[in-house]
Amino acid sequence: MPSLTVTHAPKGLEGVVATTSKICYIDGDLGVLAYRGIDIHELADNSTFEETCYLLWNEGLPTAAQLKELRDRLTAERKLDPAIIEFLRTAPKGAMPMDLLRTAVSALGLYDSEEKNNEHTSQIAMIVAAYDRLRKGKKVIEPDRSLSHAANFLLMLNGAKPSQTAERALDIALILHADHELNASTFAARVTAATLSDMHSAITSAIGALKGPLHGGANEAAFHLLETIDSSGADPVEYVRAMLAQKKKIPAFGHRVYHTEDPRATHLRKMSEDLGRSSGEPKWFEMSRKIEQFVKAEKKLNANVDLYSASTYHVLGIDVDLFTPIFAVSRISGWSAHVIEQLDDNRLIRPRADYVGPTYPQHWVPLSQR
Amino acid sequence: MPSLTVTHAPKGLEGVVATTSKICYIDGDLGVLAYRGIDIHELADNSTFEETCYLLWNEGLPTAAQLKELRDRLTAERKLDPAIIEFLRTAPKGAMPMDLLRTAVSALGLYDSEEKNNEHTSQIAMIVAAYDRLRKGKKVIEPDRSLSHAANFLLMLNGAKPSQTAERALDIALILHADHELNASTFAARVTAATLSDMHSAITSAIGALKGPLHGGANEAAFHLLETIDSSGADPVEYVRAMLAQKKKIPAFGHRVYHTEDPRATHLRKMSEDLGRSSGEPKWFEMSRKIEQFVKAEKKLNANVDLYSASTYHVLGIDVDLFTPIFAVSRISGWSAHVIEQLDDNRLIRPRADYVGPTYPQHWVPLSQR
Repeated sequence: MPSLTVTHAPKGLEGVVATTSKICYIDGDLGVLAYRGIDIHELADNSTFEETCYLLWNEGLPTAAQLKELRDRLTAERKLDPAIIEFLRTAPKGAMPMDLLRTAVSALGLYDSEEKNNEHTSQIAMIVAAYDRLRKGKKVIEPDRSLSHAANFLLMLNGAKPSQTAERALDIALILHADHELNASTFAARVTAATLSDMHSAITSAIGALKGPLHGGANEAAFHLLETIDSSGADPVEYVRAMLAQKKKIPAFGHRVYHTEDPRATHLRKMSEDLGRSSGEPKWFEMSRKIEQFVKAEKKLNANVDLYSASTYHVLGIDVDLFTPIFAVSRISGWSAHVIEQLDDNRLIRPRADYVGPTYPQHWVPLSQR
Repeated sequence: MPSLTVTHAPKGLEGVVATTSKICYIDGDLGVLAYRGIDIHELADNSTFEETCYLLWNEGLPTAAQLKELRDRLTAERKLDPAIIEFLRTAPKGAMPMDLLRTAVSALGLYDSEEKNNEHTSQIAMIVAAYDRLRKGKKVIEPDRSLSHAANFLLMLNGAKPSQTAERALDIALILHADHELNASTFAARVTAATLSDMHSAITSAIGALKGPLHGGANEAAFHLLETIDSSGADPVEYVRAMLAQKKKIPAFGHRVYHTEDPRATHLRKMSEDLGRSSGEPKWFEMSRKIEQFVKAEKKLNANVDLYSASTYHVLGIDVDLFTPIFAVSRISGWSAHVIEQLDDNRLIRPRADYVGPTYPQHWVPLSQR
């Protein structure tokens, strides 16, 4: 690999190759996303979230024995220190789930100093579900170690075993969101880990970054838009046309890396349609589809992963402010894979800034002379 | 400014200019560090931490009225929600102060959703002092709003007003550590903020990154080395010579940006010497000085900011595991300046990775065929 000394990188490090990585392959022109070389379409059709975790944390698919070992480890880690539950129970009313999740994961570092690389995968799902129960005055559901990651999460969230359809829908959504190369939250995790700080710190940084509406927060923003249009009774196309006329950004459209359809949107669109139809609530899909077609025609912008995940999660009965936490329930698999890769051949990530402030040297002058 | 499309950046983004900035000027060849163009030597000799905060958060030195307003605001923000104190009180025994600080700052977002840009400056100092009191079974000291930031911190930490010498020593240390351009923690804060996440998330990311021994954690590592040498009775030079022979990294030496003396070390060396002499405990300075001279002669490596901050803080009576938190007590001023600057002209920070994993496409195969 050639390496060159850079003077000025494009804003936001756009197009800058910050590291090599063996985890995630993206071709933004062809709309390809692959984990360890396996196309996301094959994984969405055939794999499970647990198998995908193995793939991200290792260099290929597991054998039956390896998969069993990983499942056993993940189910064994379905436990939270009572102090974390107590923290969630006593959180102030109305606290945002992403703020709770960031704080609870940071707090895991206090109660569990032993560093196991992948423990957060089980724990984040439990934190999100437990907090949602507690804020609704319901009791925390004990994990069921016989269930898959997706089914156990839905059980802990809803207090009942999910249908096969719901379990599989969430499982596919978790596979699709599991990794996406150097997205901002993963990059924040790698910058943090590269100081040789700990895994809790790295994952906490990632959650804080994911919260932003230019990143994971976009799926919540997309559903808020759908709700606003629905309750106003407006025509979706006219509503979005007016937003564009006012130069407003339409959430869940466009992507830094893809210049064609986001391959994750392909699956989520279908899932949103199928679930909408089977649940008797197809309007969210239909509205999303109209908006997608209009924005594509008008602005040449493609819907990204966040548009149809919004209607999918809603039809699964999930509260809108859990959409971004559920992104974290999945992306933790990629975050930890990237932190492990960073530490495997580490160097501090420390770029430079081009100073454009008052010319050096300015001088300190006494207060009386200012 | 010319902008070029980069293919491969050097590892750790070394030498890559990731953004323009008006905050901090560094000339690594000449050993210059300046905030808003004013040399750190002039600030260390003449300024206060509060005035330096103003300088970082604005584009020049304050008038008397502006400085008074800033001081009033900082002292008014010397308050913590009782829930944060309770969290510190109930933390598990032996929890590391940096883990507590990261979690408590994240928790601030639950209790204080109103975003004031600079509130963390007062609160971080209070959290660090309060936790140290509580873990020692002492009561939390109420802040004294008549005192400077440095003096109030020492009061809250020790339960007694500091001497003028101690106050000024800490004040200078806070000025010297306040900002350092795109160091890893500041960069983590900007990456997080650039998703349009909130200030609490950005500062939490920064604290997690600062914890690492390749960054803020180095001052603790430096003092642990001094302690080990002292208790073993070894000759410092021989001890460090043996470490070098074993290819061990000597903490607090070398810096990504400086190729000459770190200008902050100049002040901290003098401070360590003066305080060591006046306190009747000059051995830490003397040991540091011997190591510095030997490593410089042997490896052409300069001591960085962390070597003499270690002995300085120790002689001020501060526990070693508070050295990195005190770095945060200062650097919060720079972190918030950089987050404000990032948001002022924002773009998502999202570089690319060069995929070097299994060639695309690999294929999913059924478990029975693996």
